[in-house]
Amino acid sequence: MKVIHTARETQTKVLAFKRAGKKVGFVPTMGFLHEGHLSLVDLMRTISDVVLVSIYVNPTQFGAGEDFNKYPRDLQRDLDLCMAHGVDLVFVPNNLEIYPDDSSTYVVEEEVGNGMCGNSRPTHFKGVTTVCAKLFNICQPTFVALGQKDAQQVVVLKRMVRDLHFPIEIVVGPIIREKDGLAMSSRNAYLDAKQRKEALLIYQSLQTARKLVEKNGTNHVERVKAEALQVLTGGSHLRVNYIEIVNRETMSPESEIVRGRSLLAVAVWIDQVRLIDNFCF
Amino acid sequence: MKVIHTARETQTKVLAFKRAGKKVGFVPTMGFLHEGHLSLVDLMRTISDVVLVSIYVNPTQFGAGEDFNKYPRDLQRDLDLCMAHGVDLVFVPNNLEIYPDDSSTYVVEEEVGNGMCGNSRPTHFKGVTTVCAKLFNICQPTFVALGQKDAQQVVVLKRMVRDLHFPIEIVVGPIIREKDGLAMSSRNAYLDAKQRKEALLIYQSLQTARKLVEKNGTNHVERVKAEALQVLTGGSHLRVNYIEIVNRETMSPESEIVRGRSLLAVAVWIDQVRLIDNFCF
Repeated sequence: MKVIHTARETQTKVLAFKRAGKKVGFVPTMGFLHEGHLSLVDLMRTISDVVLVSIYVNPTQFGAGEDFNKYPRDLQRDLDLCMAHGVDLVFVPNNLEIYPDDSSTYVVEEEVGNGMCGNSRPTHFKGVTTVCAKLFNICQPTFVALGQKDAQQVVVLKRMVRDLHFPIEIVVGPIIREKDGLAMSSRNAYLDAKQRKEALLIYQSLQTARKLVEKNGTNHVERVKAEALQVLTGGSHLRVNYIEIVNRETMSPESEIVRGRSLLAVAVWIDQVRLIDNFCF
Repeated sequence: MKVIHTARETQTKVLAFKRAGKKVGFVPTMGFLHEGHLSLVDLMRTISDVVLVSIYVNPTQFGAGEDFNKYPRDLQRDLDLCMAHGVDLVFVPNNLEIYPDDSSTYVVEEEVGNGMCGNSRPTHFKGVTTVCAKLFNICQPTFVALGQKDAQQVVVLKRMVRDLHFPIEIVVGPIIREKDGLAMSSRNAYLDAKQRKEALLIYQSLQTARKLVEKNGTNHVERVKAEALQVLTGGSHLRVNYIEIVNRETMSPESEIVRGRSLLAVAVWIDQVRLIDNFCF
């Protein structure tokens, strides 16, 4: 496994692989890897000749007052995990490699990224699309693996890839959960025992909504949201950021729940920690 | 020579060329080709294995009330010229191929495109960077040829290529002029005989500035601008949009003229026709 710090060397290496007809599978991450990331690595290994992971905590996707500085980092542990999962290349750039001092070009998606996380984090997706455009050009992937936990991010990046004609196929891996149901997230590391216990309410609210639709057969958006919301109000540390039922492909609000199409998306704060999760009916 | 109308077929073809180790030289155009474009084609032929020209009048780089609808078009003549100049592939997309109805992703450059043409045409460079990002991903060029006549566009696109890490080298061809000095432009076709005669004042103003710097040895920005402006005020159809002396690499205003670095950039209207030109001291 090779660890590369410069964009130029990474690009040169992957372009050589591509010329040799190899398929490059790319997993962009902000590090502090968990089983969610590693499931994407494993997925890429099954369909690619070369697996490339990037580890970069992207400053532009954090808003003012968000957790950029304290975002958990452990490069050596990440590299050990990459090695154990058969990664071929790890790209670990510094900030100047990605954003030179006079960098001034951004990629913006002006539709599917507007609601939900785009509302509560107004500059977030501009940072995501910009860094991903850079990483896609540097890493020249055949496949990019994204996790379904960040459902809106998946839709934004699929839209960007389609609109800008990147010759890339986005492959989406399922949400990986802890044994008790909490969606894996690097930010779970912030939670103390009490907070961790309350975070489980997120999963429970999704399950409540699922049962209501599956067993009672309701397709009533407001009814299902209200029931899920009720579960989330059961904690003293938890505050709801949003709870929405949207079309999973477009992120536009649904007027009724359609199985296989409608997505329940939830964002909460557990004290200062913001967590998201979702469930497709 | 092959003419292709879809992004997918173009991308598939060039990716195959790239895998075979061929260098692809790309000349993006809005058609109505003149010797300026063709000099770029000839330049690309000398350094590339495959020469690709795109012909697409990009709606997003025209502002409201600008000349998108009446922009001159003559596809058959363009194709004949491409053929005569040894072009291998011509990409002629329609609007939906480049901008699907729900397309929502844009590329913005927020610094070097702000002054001059970015002032007088506020949405222009957003259209240019967006369409070029799309075209670069579709056409996967090794080299992109741009004309120095659009000096600020060159700087904006160089910045975009650097910032987004496109694996592309931008090659800039010199301004090609009519015998009397008028810079070649598809928009020259709009001019009637009287307007055409007045348009020559643009070149004469650049020459006046050049002589002042070369012969009199002045490096005084405002003095040189004033003299060039004086030449431009000699017409009854001509109105000055801007006249600036800037750093040719950054487009930031110069406090003194430095040979080899400072650029005199001029934009005027001849009645309804907007023309630009420039000269590097």
